[in-house]
Amino acid sequence: MDPNRREFLSATAVAATLTATAASPVLAQTTTTAQAADTTFTTAPAQGAVAYAAPTEIKKIEIVNLRELEAAAQKVIPKGGFGYIASAAGDEWTKNENQAAFKRVTIVPHYLSGHADADLTTTLLGSKIAMPIITTVMGGHGLAHVTAEAGTAKGTDAAGTIFTAGSQSTLTLEEIAVASPGPKWFQIYLQKDPGVNRDLLLRAKAAGYRAVVVTIDAFVSSNRETDARDRFHSPLPSGNFPGKRGGYGSTPFKEDLGWDDIAFVQKVTGLPVIVKGVMSPELAAAAVTHGCAGIQVSNHGGRQLDDVPAAFTMLPHIAQAVAGRIAIVVDSGFRRGQDVFKALALGANAVAIGRPVMFGLALGGWMGVQQVHEHLKEELRMTMRLAGAATVADISKRYLL
Amino acid sequence: MDPNRREFLSATAVAATLTATAASPVLAQTTTTAQAADTTFTTAPAQGAVAYAAPTEIKKIEIVNLRELEAAAQKVIPKGGFGYIASAAGDEWTKNENQAAFKRVTIVPHYLSGHADADLTTTLLGSKIAMPIITTVMGGHGLAHVTAEAGTAKGTDAAGTIFTAGSQSTLTLEEIAVASPGPKWFQIYLQKDPGVNRDLLLRAKAAGYRAVVVTIDAFVSSNRETDARDRFHSPLPSGNFPGKRGGYGSTPFKEDLGWDDIAFVQKVTGLPVIVKGVMSPELAAAAVTHGCAGIQVSNHGGRQLDDVPAAFTMLPHIAQAVAGRIAIVVDSGFRRGQDVFKALALGANAVAIGRPVMFGLALGGWMGVQQVHEHLKEELRMTMRLAGAATVADISKRYLL
Amino acid sequence: MDPNRREFLSATAVAATLTATAASPVLAQTTTTAQAADTTFTTAPAQGAVAYAAPTEIKKIEIVNLRELEAAAQKVIPKGGFGYIASAAGDEWTKNENQAAFKRVTIVPHYLSGHADADLTTTLLGSKIAMPIITTVMGGHGLAHVTAEAGTAKGTDAAGTIFTAGSQSTLTLEEIAVASPGPKWFQIYLQKDPGVNRDLLLRAKAAGYRAVVVTIDAFVSSNRETDARDRFHSPLPSGNFPGKRGGYGSTPFKEDLGWDDIAFVQKVTGLPVIVKGVMSPELAAAAVTHGCAGIQVSNHGGRQLDDVPAAFTMLPHIAQAVAGRIAIVVDSGFRRGQDVFKALALGANAVAIGRPVMFGLALGGWMGVQQVHEHLKEELRMTMRLAGAATVADISKRYLL
Amino acid sequence: MDPNRREFLSATAVAATLTATAASPVLAQTTTTAQAADTTFTTAPAQGAVAYAAPTEIKKIEIVNLRELEAAAQKVIPKGGFGYIASAAGDEWTKNENQAAFKRVTIVPHYLSGHADADLTTTLLGSKIAMPIITTVMGGHGLAHVTAEAGTAKGTDAAGTIFTAGSQSTLTLEEIAVASPGPKWFQIYLQKDPGVNRDLLLRAKAAGYRAVVVTIDAFVSSNRETDARDRFHSPLPSGNFPGKRGGYGSTPFKEDLGWDDIAFVQKVTGLPVIVKGVMSPELAAAAVTHGCAGIQVSNHGGRQLDDVPAAFTMLPHIAQAVAGRIAIVVDSGFRRGQDVFKALALGANAVAIGRPVMFGLALGGWMGVQQVHEHLKEELRMTMRLAGAATVADISKRYLL
Repeated sequence: MDPNRREFLSATAVAATLTATAASPVLAQTTTTAQAADTTFTTAPAQGAVAYAAPTEIKKIEIVNLRELEAAAQKVIPKGGFGYIASAAGDEWTKNENQAAFKRVTIVPHYLSGHADADLTTTLLGSKIAMPIITTVMGGHGLAHVTAEAGTAKGTDAAGTIFTAGSQSTLTLEEIAVASPGPKWFQIYLQKDPGVNRDLLLRAKAAGYRAVVVTIDAFVSSNRETDARDRFHSPLPSGNFPGKRGGYGSTPFKEDLGWDDIAFVQKVTGLPVIVKGVMSPELAAAAVTHGCAGIQVSNHGGRQLDDVPAAFTMLPHIAQAVAGRIAIVVDSGFRRGQDVFKALALGANAVAIGRPVMFGLALGGWMGVQQVHEHLKEELRMTMRLAGAATVADISKRYLL
Repeated sequence: MDPNRREFLSATAVAATLTATAASPVLAQTTTTAQAADTTFTTAPAQGAVAYAAPTEIKKIEIVNLRELEAAAQKVIPKGGFGYIASAAGDEWTKNENQAAFKRVTIVPHYLSGHADADLTTTLLGSKIAMPIITTVMGGHGLAHVTAEAGTAKGTDAAGTIFTAGSQSTLTLEEIAVASPGPKWFQIYLQKDPGVNRDLLLRAKAAGYRAVVVTIDAFVSSNRETDARDRFHSPLPSGNFPGKRGGYGSTPFKEDLGWDDIAFVQKVTGLPVIVKGVMSPELAAAAVTHGCAGIQVSNHGGRQLDDVPAAFTMLPHIAQAVAGRIAIVVDSGFRRGQDVFKALALGANAVAIGRPVMFGLALGGWMGVQQVHEHLKEELRMTMRLAGAATVADISKRYLL
Repeated sequence: MDPNRREFLSATAVAATLTATAASPVLAQTTTTAQAADTTFTTAPAQGAVAYAAPTEIKKIEIVNLRELEAAAQKVIPKGGFGYIASAAGDEWTKNENQAAFKRVTIVPHYLSGHADADLTTTLLGSKIAMPIITTVMGGHGLAHVTAEAGTAKGTDAAGTIFTAGSQSTLTLEEIAVASPGPKWFQIYLQKDPGVNRDLLLRAKAAGYRAVVVTIDAFVSSNRETDARDRFHSPLPSGNFPGKRGGYGSTPFKEDLGWDDIAFVQKVTGLPVIVKGVMSPELAAAAVTHGCAGIQVSNHGGRQLDDVPAAFTMLPHIAQAVAGRIAIVVDSGFRRGQDVFKALALGANAVAIGRPVMFGLALGGWMGVQQVHEHLKEELRMTMRLAGAATVADISKRYLL
Repeated sequence: MDPNRREFLSATAVAATLTATAASPVLAQTTTTAQAADTTFTTAPAQGAVAYAAPTEIKKIEIVNLRELEAAAQKVIPKGGFGYIASAAGDEWTKNENQAAFKRVTIVPHYLSGHADADLTTTLLGSKIAMPIITTVMGGHGLAHVTAEAGTAKGTDAAGTIFTAGSQSTLTLEEIAVASPGPKWFQIYLQKDPGVNRDLLLRAKAAGYRAVVVTIDAFVSSNRETDARDRFHSPLPSGNFPGKRGGYGSTPFKEDLGWDDIAFVQKVTGLPVIVKGVMSPELAAAAVTHGCAGIQVSNHGGRQLDDVPAAFTMLPHIAQAVAGRIAIVVDSGFRRGQDVFKALALGANAVAIGRPVMFGLALGGWMGVQQVHEHLKEELRMTMRLAGAATVADISKRYLL
């Protein structure tokens, strides 16, 4: 086992379990791990060991709404890790605008529809899921909880939807795949070495991932100023790249990404490819032309280039350009069932959520993740029922002012 | 008497009086009931008795404006009850937008009109009332005052206008009818069992209610997050449904409401039917087609689906669709005479108010309710006189910028 | 002398001086009257005497900008009096909007104009004045300073511009006229008794007032909620109506004002008539038709009907309707030279200021009033010079974005 | 040496060095001057000596973003000097609007461009510079640091770009020229005496300045209210005008500036002339007609006429009028690489920055200045790379929403 990774695991309450089995038996835990954690952390860390103390509890949590999870999570995640997860680039204008943009579109309910309930199931790139909400790719799961991506993947799977694993994960993509038996996607940050990319992609395909998400907006480091103020550097091992560290501890990223890179991924894997980070109608149209299976409209949660519009603001323009030819996933700022409803009405096929999932993970492990998804699902159901939409396909601009 | 209801009443200062007479003799009280209350509450409650201590005073209150009643009422209503009354759904965006929307429309006064005073009387669905302002249906009157709907009904009647009783009231609809001898309406949440609906509607007709308001936007529980944080569950008995409790303690609500349900109410009662919760021109036009006597433009005070527009925002669009063919009542957020004036100018026939009435009830019983109505009426009179409108019919878009 | 008025004066430091001479010799004072005030106020007031202790100092004050005078004045004016002067109607939305509206119009400077200085003189209804800024009519001068209107009039006159005396003044219109030898206007609140109006108008003409301002927006009391909270009732005598009290202590106001009332004033006095309170293009056009010499665009500083637009917002629409045929004065919210510049660019002939003058009076008597005018004049001069306008007539829409 | 200037220098840590050599050897210092400063300041100042204690340290500073430098600089610059640098005119509405305006324009990134890096070099009026960012002219460098303009000039030069010296500098223009061997511009406030202007312009040409910036928006003092509140008067000597003091201690400014003054500068120097303070398309077009080499779109950082639009707001209108015929520099409020990117996309050839440079000077002398430029440059590089622009010439409206 990679020494960096072992180090990380040894600093956590679940280390013993994880190393004793092939898969992620930590996920079998349903009670809190507080006692185990005490034992582990009172042990003096080995020389050079990681001091970062990620949350360890796995339990049902109380959710009033997804917004309030942030403050609760801030109490349990160490400062640097919380800052990394919660903050964004520059002035955080885009992060805040992601929220504000939703409120500029209002819902016109069509009462007396005669519908008693709403059917939230949908099919996304061939996978039937419980609701049009999935988990987006994120870095730093290990900062939020000792079970890292295994917890998030299991919780997402338990909620009946798709988990997106990332190339820069704390655990290996194979470990994550085991934790999430249902439909799942693999995201990649393409690196300079094509051989590394090829290997990783083939491993993902072999592990059962059904689609590849290629992130196109993060080939350059952005100005995450909270991290700079916190002097935060991720202590996490890099699951897929033994010997590396820090989340982004892979070989150097490819910086001159172009459409040939997308073609490379398509050719190597034969899997559906989703281009993530699309923020213009032109690029969306090009994705159709280049045979992509879908796009993910995203401004990376405001974490990359600040002063770009809300993803939600660009969505209708992009949906018009795509004209239903490929799937549209949208992320960045979704916190309410109404937000999801509005995005579906404006042409998205599904919404991907990020930070709230991470906060659920921190507060309750996989159980918290599942609850976050279930809570958002119930808000969407309530919105659909009150608005008068019986199915996901029913949701259209007709319901917006 | 239903044990739940007796329990509630026994926990209040007016219990003895109420049980000793057929109607609501508490309304005869014009002095404070503080002394009686002391006696009652120092008595240990019977086993399982409701501990909720609703306000009991009946007196003249001081009103500077309707907004300020909220903070005053918060001091006298128990926390959970106040939260239930004052809060709204989700982010309370719609609740706040209900206020903000008024300020986006300004009044252009036409001075030198030659009018000395303004005539505020109007006729609404055949009932002549003192002003184009009525009391909307609300739940939880018993949370605000021990006299519950009897207080609100009497105060509204004393102000010369229409009270809307609700199917989920604390007192029985017959008790409320006695308290409000003038014109009054009965609101119903349709339930799954048509027999229950029929019985209730026939009782309302028999008790003298002149119209039926059918609420169409509350067949699903919404996310009242303040109630969740307060872990609030209404301790009130359900007047019209003996043995039930909690305001919504009726048999289950009908969730697949459609136009046939409206036809059912029309047929059973033969009374004018007002559909409450209309938020789109399409639905308003349909109400005309389906023979409704009126509609109530409303977003339920922001308490049902958050992120819908202000009712006031939808009003002019809806008025255009209705084109004067049926009556338009509008509620949600009205606090100022100017608000009422603007709504009338945009096509409403009357405005229905809610929370301010409840706060007036909490602070002064029926006398507070009457004052709330009188205060708003005087603000409307001042607005009409300064703007130059001599009668309610005079108020038109000519006075808006 | 009217007992009410004597009472007021006896409670002030200037009482002895004022009663010993025909005119207002208090205005000759240039040093502080603190010592005299001490003597006076330590004397026990006569039975029923007014306890209100208005400021007494006459001195040069320090002005950074007109906005900051309010906080300074609040420290020296008794609470009730300050509230009366500074507050407005209802939510004070219109009062605040009066400020906000200015910032929605920006100035485009035309540099390299070749002008070295700016000429601020102008002629308004035949009177040449030092700048296109005058003092509007206000009630309650005696609340701000013991010299009441005599101080404001003298300070305005010293600044070389027009003072508008009001029918409801603390001093008599004749006393005010003596204090202000230059051009001055007389404002009237028409009362029910035409004889009273006629007498007052003829007195004003005899005293040398050059024009009559008829206020049309205040025949109904508005909801000044700060006064209600302060339980404030003006202790001032009513100079022009012996035996009355309280600023508005005249005979009852005429409430059915119409154009025939304007004709009455024109006929009785033969003086130019300015209709004050015009807020619509229609009324402005009617003023032209009815032979008015001018209009004063005004929302009464937000003190009458709340929720009306800013006067500045209506100005360009009104100027278009007037098309230069009669004079346009505008008031309500002017605090900056730029505000004045923008109003002139949008068609006003002059700007009338109110509260800042009153605060200057409170802080420095007539010297403070003069300084307020001079300060605003210098801001206007700076604005004109930087914008590139050499004369008042030069100021046009060309300078606005 | 001019006594005023000697006095200023004698009060600083660098006095001995500065007077001992012809040029500015203080710039050779790379360590902190704290020790020297202590020695100097504990010496009792000579009679009449300036007590102003400007910062003295020369060191690398920590920059998270340029906004945060202001608060840090406030801790080291004496109150009056900081107020002079940081504040603006009137309500500071224009100063704040300068910031707000940027956020109303958003960037649409074009990912998958295939570019690996961005080339930031550009040529401005014939001078090749490292990035399209220069240092604008400012007064009061000596308030921020004892090395005054020599520090700012050296730091700017070290960053590979243009420094704009001003006629009202603390040091002489020749001293500043020595500190900044690379391309540099000279700004002039034209004075009433043409001989003075001629001498100064010829000295600047002889000293190697490559262009002359004529400021057209500051011939009148504006209302800097913070200075008024602080009773601040600059203690600085006037380098180019021996015997004068206070930054603006030259002979009186010419107040009737016109195009003939621009022609005078062109004729005397034969250098390219940039008119600074252009805020309208008309004036920009006139600058082309009058043979100017460029214009500087500017509202003087909000320090002259308040209530004018943001310079950034006027930029696209001005760029349209100029149509690429002459160079456009823009200043006023730039703090972010994104701000610079947006201005270039809207037609600017370069952006000039002011206050952040001054704060960098205060915090780290020339090293701080260099870092400020490098930081902004790297933000611009990040923005270009993420947006997909390979060169400065590539940046166009295509990248804006």
